[in-house]
Amino acid sequence: MDLDALRKIGYGMYVIGARKGEQLNAQIANTVFQITSEPATVAVSINKKNLTNEYIKASRVFSASILHEATPLLYIGNFGFRSGRDTDKLKGVNYKIGVTKSPIFLDHATAYLEAEVIQDIDVGTHTIFIGRIVATEVLNDEACMTYDYYHQVKKGTTPKTAPSYIPGDKGGN
Amino acid sequence: MDLDALRKIGYGMYVIGARKGEQLNAQIANTVFQITSEPATVAVSINKKNLTNEYIKASRVFSASILHEATPLLYIGNFGFRSGRDTDKLKGVNYKIGVTKSPIFLDHATAYLEAEVIQDIDVGTHTIFIGRIVATEVLNDEACMTYDYYHQVKKGTTPKTAPSYIPGDKGGN
Repeated sequence: MDLDALRKIGYGMYVIGARKGEQLNAQIANTVFQITSEPATVAVSINKKNLTNEYIKASRVFSASILHEATPLLYIGNFGFRSGRDTDKLKGVNYKIGVTKSPIFLDHATAYLEAEVIQDIDVGTHTIFIGRIVATEVLNDEACMTYDYYHQVKKGTTPKTAPSYIPGDKGGN
Repeated sequence: MDLDALRKIGYGMYVIGARKGEQLNAQIANTVFQITSEPATVAVSINKKNLTNEYIKASRVFSASILHEATPLLYIGNFGFRSGRDTDKLKGVNYKIGVTKSPIFLDHATAYLEAEVIQDIDVGTHTIFIGRIVATEVLNDEACMTYDYYHQVKKGTTPKTAPSYIPGDKGGN
């Protein structure tokens, strides 16, 4: 079966901020989407192997900083291609602590949201966390980075732990 | 709370094809996304009030035709701003029947996929259907329509039944 069709699905690019007590972590995700409008809820799909998954399960909160188009590839790589188990991803990166006490990343964001998890759904390799929005802010009018732009223009790659990994993609773990 | 930040979330635009026995229907959705890569699964969020929801629950299959950027607003309006309960949305529209016997809409698609539902999740006003991909095809290299392009360039609107409706949006039901 030709899975190239899955590359046509549209996404944005996000830094997901998470905590477990006072410990903070973050990772890149592209599968953030609104679920209902009343109340306003969003979902994010996170690999069970990822530290962020463990942190969200522990604290029941997360943030999503929505990246703009001009975000440098190195900034994404810092969050996306290594594990918070091996390194402090937040070292040298600007962030603020939100109302959920999750870290929020402002350097290349056009907006952010914070959510409290109301449901988590086991979907095999990943967990879908559904969160009720508790805070949001629009930061500027910059164009949002699309996942397609990240691949086509920025020449970014996808790690194997991403929901949208397709066999044959280059990319780290 | 300023929900404008939710407008920054990135999506594509899709025609979701559904059936109940031999009865066919379709609707527009923007919340389609890949959930896992092994096996390849996708999710779609559909309002419980929609006929498409009833049909997917009955047949346990759906298709998603991924719209390209040049899709006319009228084509989207045909599927998106009226109910299959009142009108035959497929009348006068080209489609083919896929391996799941769901209708697939080729006129303005760049690719399509078909899925068998393996899980459906009640999230209040909407159901998230998670489907295992059983067929896909890339049709051409046209740029995909993003939800942002639909709003900004095509001046499209969002019905109140959409997951991504934000109070204050214009748009039908």
